[in-house]
Amino acid sequence: MGKENFVEQIADIDADFPQWYTDVVLKTELVDYGPVKGTMVIRPYGYAVWENIQAELDARFKATGHKNAYFPLLIPMSFFTKEAEHVEGFAPEVAVVTHAGGEELSEPLAIRPTSETIFGSMYSKWLQSYRDLPIMINQWCNVMRWEKTTRPFLRTSEFLWQEGHTAHATEEEALGETMKMLGVYKEFAENVLAIPVICGRKTEKEKFAGAVATFGMEAMMKDGKSLQAGTSHYLGQNFAKSFDIKFLDKDGSQKYAYTSSWGVSTRLIGAIIMAHGDRRGLVLPPKVAPVQAVIIPIAAKKDGVIEKCLEIKAELEKMSIRVEFDDSDASPGWKFNEWEMKGVPLRIEVGPRDIENGKAVIFRRDTCNKEEYSLDGIADTVKGLLDVVQKDMLEAARARRDGRIVYAKDMKGILDGVEGGNFVKAGWCGCRECEDKVKAETAATARVFAEGETAETCAICGKKAEHVIIFARAY
Amino acid sequence: MGKENFVEQIADIDADFPQWYTDVVLKTELVDYGPVKGTMVIRPYGYAVWENIQAELDARFKATGHKNAYFPLLIPMSFFTKEAEHVEGFAPEVAVVTHAGGEELSEPLAIRPTSETIFGSMYSKWLQSYRDLPIMINQWCNVMRWEKTTRPFLRTSEFLWQEGHTAHATEEEALGETMKMLGVYKEFAENVLAIPVICGRKTEKEKFAGAVATFGMEAMMKDGKSLQAGTSHYLGQNFAKSFDIKFLDKDGSQKYAYTSSWGVSTRLIGAIIMAHGDRRGLVLPPKVAPVQAVIIPIAAKKDGVIEKCLEIKAELEKMSIRVEFDDSDASPGWKFNEWEMKGVPLRIEVGPRDIENGKAVIFRRDTCNKEEYSLDGIADTVKGLLDVVQKDMLEAARARRDGRIVYAKDMKGILDGVEGGNFVKAGWCGCRECEDKVKAETAATARVFAEGETAETCAICGKKAEHVIIFARAY
Repeated sequence: MGKENFVEQIADIDADFPQWYTDVVLKTELVDYGPVKGTMVIRPYGYAVWENIQAELDARFKATGHKNAYFPLLIPMSFFTKEAEHVEGFAPEVAVVTHAGGEELSEPLAIRPTSETIFGSMYSKWLQSYRDLPIMINQWCNVMRWEKTTRPFLRTSEFLWQEGHTAHATEEEALGETMKMLGVYKEFAENVLAIPVICGRKTEKEKFAGAVATFGMEAMMKDGKSLQAGTSHYLGQNFAKSFDIKFLDKDGSQKYAYTSSWGVSTRLIGAIIMAHGDRRGLVLPPKVAPVQAVIIPIAAKKDGVIEKCLEIKAELEKMSIRVEFDDSDASPGWKFNEWEMKGVPLRIEVGPRDIENGKAVIFRRDTCNKEEYSLDGIADTVKGLLDVVQKDMLEAARARRDGRIVYAKDMKGILDGVEGGNFVKAGWCGCRECEDKVKAETAATARVFAEGETAETCAICGKKAEHVIIFARAY
Repeated sequence: MGKENFVEQIADIDADFPQWYTDVVLKTELVDYGPVKGTMVIRPYGYAVWENIQAELDARFKATGHKNAYFPLLIPMSFFTKEAEHVEGFAPEVAVVTHAGGEELSEPLAIRPTSETIFGSMYSKWLQSYRDLPIMINQWCNVMRWEKTTRPFLRTSEFLWQEGHTAHATEEEALGETMKMLGVYKEFAENVLAIPVICGRKTEKEKFAGAVATFGMEAMMKDGKSLQAGTSHYLGQNFAKSFDIKFLDKDGSQKYAYTSSWGVSTRLIGAIIMAHGDRRGLVLPPKVAPVQAVIIPIAAKKDGVIEKCLEIKAELEKMSIRVEFDDSDASPGWKFNEWEMKGVPLRIEVGPRDIENGKAVIFRRDTCNKEEYSLDGIADTVKGLLDVVQKDMLEAARARRDGRIVYAKDMKGILDGVEGGNFVKAGWCGCRECEDKVKAETAATARVFAEGETAETCAICGKKAEHVIIFARAY
């Protein structure tokens, strides 16, 4: 079986990006469809990516003073009505438990779509004095938002995420926390996922239901569309007032706290796939790849090949490199295809001639280049290459994205820009009508403000521009 | 404030064990009640215990060849009816989603009480050939069982757990897996939680709904009651036949797989509390304690005390000891009480005279003994002491338990035994009537078979005994 045989199983990335995505997530066994419409099973290969994401993020959350906890899945429906914008935003998507233990419940219960309300109700109980502040808690959990159109990782009725919820004595501190966590996300996206992101404030229309301000990070996918990869919300005193989160301040008076919340989800796996994947399948950044290097024997039946492969595997494991040795019966070519499709960053080919020459061939999944390396110190070489791949993937993604950011002066420019698969920067007067008009005519939405940039006129109505905004079609 | 002041906040462990438990879990901030009846909020201190449990178990699961994954929360109600015993066992406890996205669902969905059915439906889809076996997947998740009477960690409508689900080609392999994981749990309970456990098969009455055989591990609490701390189920072909989990075997024929499942939950935190706690509060085994050592300054305002404390803290952290330095304004006595109640294994007291003498006083929470140690090599000393505490706690728990296992020859013996807070071993004919009679007259249930032990006659009916069984009142 030749190489092309395998690649043909995946739709052409240039011709049909959505089908390519579906093929890749299913065939690499990242995910499968669950029995209930809109649900997904995250299979071991996909879940291992999530575990790596969790480990990296969790260390960052703890280093910034947060602790993990677990709050209940079920929230009284009445909680949602306490914050007016919040209920409007989430009520239509909620899944509702009406019966339990063989009886009808006296009050229906929502499966959490997000947990501001239940954190709020507990913080109200726990918070007494300014000495108790700040409260900085994160939780890793499942959430549910009933969606009409679903796609694995990108939009499913249930997904996994983390949600941080903090309470502070002052606006300044809460806003500081909001921005700090946005910064943590950005550093993580770039250094761990190798995805460059643009961070900024969201418009009123696009902000979180109940927030004073939402800050998002937007990542460009290979089709030029944007994916919101994480959000950090400054909630002001909105939830504090709805849930009575008050404290006795130093001056002896009762004050409402200021709160924030921030989250990223298994959507990030979709971002990795679409930011880096190519016609052969996945391309995984080393830091989250479940398998960082695969060793493939060439002419495995020849004396000493298996032994040498196992020796190399042991050396790599000693350096904590996640390595697999593929000693299955399949042909080397078949294995090449399989592990390329699965996005393993490095492939080490070891054959009798290589051993004789004291060398091995290493294939880089990101560039698809092969090179020979000495078997002496192979573990150090692999470690070094993984670092190079990690950095190069970020730079390649950044170059791709930067080449697809355009400026528009009018509606035609916006339309042409997004049609061409670009992020489009344009002046905006700030009015909702103009924002809606862009969406209606181009299917693009306002992603984030281009912080610090200015424009003369609104590209939509021609009036004075108040902001520069980034428009893009989005997942 | 004297020491007794704090202790008085907790009910007397000997006079009112249930109230002692409630006081301890709430006052140490392990947990709080959620807004919905029967739910709990696992607070950061409690969740940190769970994280330590997870890390220890997860490493063991991976070392035994299992991979993690995530399966959907919602299961079609029709799945439960496919396995007759299973639906009977779980249907009464299920929470049901009937509405979502603003509409009534065409089929009601159950929130998983356990996931054999949804794993089964996916394994049926994934499994083709004997080459695909074994399938060994674990998931960490929340589950829901609607209970009438609830207590934090012990019985709540929602709890966190892990559930392993495996499929094998033969009965032997599946049974081997069932027993292997029971062994993993036992080793973990004893070496990590410092809780000695008795493992064995459960009676037909007490087994998991849908299993061929359930093996449990039972731990004795300080009131002499038993807590089922984990179970491993051999499911035979029951679920394979209900969910069509079939494979093409080497001989060319289609065969049903044999499956197993096994799980432990946040109940383990309840077990730790009740196996080790005392009148002062929690006593945590070092391996799961969120804080392993706390440093408390004596006469903190004296020159050099704070500095020395920080120095010791840095030394301990270098050895990966989880350490806190309590430099709050409270008095040393108040701090002693607080950290004792929180069950921190070691307290290091550092005052001006200690520093002068090059010594520190170390208090062991498990024995409540104080001793002086040299400040030279204090980190090694602490590391060593933590190991000693870990081992001593297991041995102390074992001695306590072994002193409370009695034998009974008749119903009066069983009743006296359980009334006295013991595990009672007794001959049993094997019939359900006798098992039910014990429950009706003593409130004790058959915990596990005492494997390898024999008796002449059934302590209940006097007929020939087929087994020796352990009766106890249980959580």
